[in-house]
Amino acid sequence: MRTVNIGIVGIGTVGGGFVRLLQLHHDDYVRSYGVDLRIARACALDPARAEELGVSDVFTTDWRDVTGDPDVDIVIELIGGMHPAVDIFEDAFAHGKHVVSANKAMLSGEMGRLAGIAHANGVQLRCEAAVGGGIPIVEALEHALAGNSILTIAGIVNGTTNYMLTRMEREGLSFDEVLAQAQSLGYAEADPTADVDGLDAAAKAAILATIGFNTRVTRDDISLVEGIRGVSLEDVRVAAELGYRIKLLAIARRTSSGLDVRVHPAMIPVEHMLASVDGVYNAVYVVGDAVGETMLYGAGAGSYPTASAVMGDVLELATPIAHDRVPLPEAEPFPRVEPIRPAESLHDRYYIRLTVADEPGILAEVAGVFGRNGTSLQQVRQHGGSQGSTVQIVLVTHRTLERDVRASLDELRGTAGVAAIDSMIRVEDTQAWKRDAIEASSRV
Amino acid sequence: MRTVNIGIVGIGTVGGGFVRLLQLHHDDYVRSYGVDLRIARACALDPARAEELGVSDVFTTDWRDVTGDPDVDIVIELIGGMHPAVDIFEDAFAHGKHVVSANKAMLSGEMGRLAGIAHANGVQLRCEAAVGGGIPIVEALEHALAGNSILTIAGIVNGTTNYMLTRMEREGLSFDEVLAQAQSLGYAEADPTADVDGLDAAAKAAILATIGFNTRVTRDDISLVEGIRGVSLEDVRVAAELGYRIKLLAIARRTSSGLDVRVHPAMIPVEHMLASVDGVYNAVYVVGDAVGETMLYGAGAGSYPTASAVMGDVLELATPIAHDRVPLPEAEPFPRVEPIRPAESLHDRYYIRLTVADEPGILAEVAGVFGRNGTSLQQVRQHGGSQGSTVQIVLVTHRTLERDVRASLDELRGTAGVAAIDSMIRVEDTQAWKRDAIEASSRV
Repeated sequence: MRTVNIGIVGIGTVGGGFVRLLQLHHDDYVRSYGVDLRIARACALDPARAEELGVSDVFTTDWRDVTGDPDVDIVIELIGGMHPAVDIFEDAFAHGKHVVSANKAMLSGEMGRLAGIAHANGVQLRCEAAVGGGIPIVEALEHALAGNSILTIAGIVNGTTNYMLTRMEREGLSFDEVLAQAQSLGYAEADPTADVDGLDAAAKAAILATIGFNTRVTRDDISLVEGIRGVSLEDVRVAAELGYRIKLLAIARRTSSGLDVRVHPAMIPVEHMLASVDGVYNAVYVVGDAVGETMLYGAGAGSYPTASAVMGDVLELATPIAHDRVPLPEAEPFPRVEPIRPAESLHDRYYIRLTVADEPGILAEVAGVFGRNGTSLQQVRQHGGSQGSTVQIVLVTHRTLERDVRASLDELRGTAGVAAIDSMIRVEDTQAWKRDAIEASSRV
Repeated sequence: MRTVNIGIVGIGTVGGGFVRLLQLHHDDYVRSYGVDLRIARACALDPARAEELGVSDVFTTDWRDVTGDPDVDIVIELIGGMHPAVDIFEDAFAHGKHVVSANKAMLSGEMGRLAGIAHANGVQLRCEAAVGGGIPIVEALEHALAGNSILTIAGIVNGTTNYMLTRMEREGLSFDEVLAQAQSLGYAEADPTADVDGLDAAAKAAILATIGFNTRVTRDDISLVEGIRGVSLEDVRVAAELGYRIKLLAIARRTSSGLDVRVHPAMIPVEHMLASVDGVYNAVYVVGDAVGETMLYGAGAGSYPTASAVMGDVLELATPIAHDRVPLPEAEPFPRVEPIRPAESLHDRYYIRLTVADEPGILAEVAGVFGRNGTSLQQVRQHGGSQGSTVQIVLVTHRTLERDVRASLDELRGTAGVAAIDSMIRVEDTQAWKRDAIEASSRV
């Protein structure tokens, strides 16, 4: 058994958790897996942090000392962002080192290209920690579920927004109130854009689609990315009345007209497993043609949960190395084999809340607009009482094309008597996700 | 890329699903993973089945034709039972072949010994399909969660009993009614013992504990195995009133006094993720010291879900073989490092339903018996009205030792005025499972 040398770049929240986890369990890994892990290099900006973590003796401020160290077997990149993260990957691969990372933002654009470089250099790129924190979803898609044609992936992959939606629902707080509280508790950043505008979830959607469908989907391929800023407390309440909960979902589906990849708030039935995922927790629901419905649930962020995923990747690489084997290199990455379906071709159901003039016939007029644009309604109803001269209408469509709904909303904007289109939230047909699985299973 | 040859023994429900899944996706595996899988040998008793599956040309009735075939790389054992399954493993290993199996009953006793033989022969034993059907729980415990000290595993791992409990709860059917219906639908066997008496769940508990704790736990080590025959519709109803649902759980926990491994019906709070797992679905909840709480959910049985897990194992082995690498051999199996805690040392909460004489003072007398035996009660109440000369009492204890509860029940059996002890169901302290995780996480 030989010692496996780790070079770590970034010893902040996740990196520090990794260092402490290794200190706690080093001897367990020797005993259980025959793997002796050693931190051979630790790179960060602040020597005091290295001191605190007990890695001063291997500390450097230059990441090239890590990627270029001939003793280092595995480089862990945990600094995030574009540069120098991407340079660290490239230099580590060039030096024949495997890379483990949690960098979803960078990988959502660069994964395909970097996997190609890893493949060419005979090493691996592993990123379990990039999606769902400690939830073993990347491994499941790559390995245990590899025998399936994956049909649907739907994930709650952003803990901040799920925490906010949960508190809005449970405590009747507004978006602004709950955002301020999340910020004060450290669950949301001072600039919450990446979370609340869906950008973080979109990065994870790109990674999930890439791995799940053996194709290449980048963040920029996803045209439909909506966050939760437009979700009002009123919508959360009406959703509950209708038997739904609102969740920010990262969805990737295989359809006959291409890959349907998108991020937006969605109403899902309260009985669906995803609807029970509360607070900062994450979950990824996967339908495979053979396995049917599965769901993996857990902590989507945090120091130790994320470090757990990083350690899983490290141990996976270190086990063969410790036993003088060479880990299998990264598989040759695939070009995109399936087109991405444009968002306007989405076939979904829609919840729409409008403020209209409190006049007879307005409800029929609104319904008429949808009808003329090819959308049939499952329900239309007045919501709440009259607010002076206006009243609210809530409607839910049957399955229809997004472009037809958008045409209806455009027409309504020019309609006398329609004061405001307050919200439009997609209503996911979770039964269709399930039917796909059963049909596919009966076919095999 | 070289062809990887599969020898399959057993082409019934799961084996047939595997053959069909391979036929459906063979070309996808070539394209996606560079793996060309071929069924080189198929062994069964019935040539008509081989005909039906299109594998007549490689059909044999002698399993030694499979294990001894020099072309075969991977042997899949899907016949179940003890013999010749165990002989197939041994002969395949002796011939340097990897074995993939779903045989939980046999592996729950023999896994440690067989893993040792696999290790000695430089090959792997893989059994993802043995627990939770298509749910990737074995892989998660072995790989992605390998960096954790696993604290708690609690699984709904028997779909038949979960289906029965779900229907009892939803439709108010009795155990006997729902068993008869499950049998007519094919969800329960003509002899339902393995399912309803908890034996199948106990086999899976042994495998989960062995893998999760890197130790050796066999089916015979588990002294507390209770099925759901003792769960009456009345208990299901009272549980709902108390805010619980009754699930048959396979539990394995690391405690300061040894491993706590057991199978029994348990009341768990309706809010807990495991409580939402309905029908034939399975789920395994895992708490790791770093990752915290996670749960994996999916189809626990069935032809294609189980074949999905078998295919995941096969692809994992076949990927290096196809690329002229030798898969890492099975790790050296560990002897038991932690003792199994005896069931009577269990520290749990208990729900007890009694039929007692409808007389003043009886409730106080019953409470007194528990008090004298060191058990304090969280609630005692009369349940329902008087039934002639008797009445029912329901009580729930605080956390207490199982041996003290048993002593109380023994004393009550000899108490005048106690007509019957109708049921005793453990009430799991799921908050304690969670607290363990948080405490452990803050420690690392």
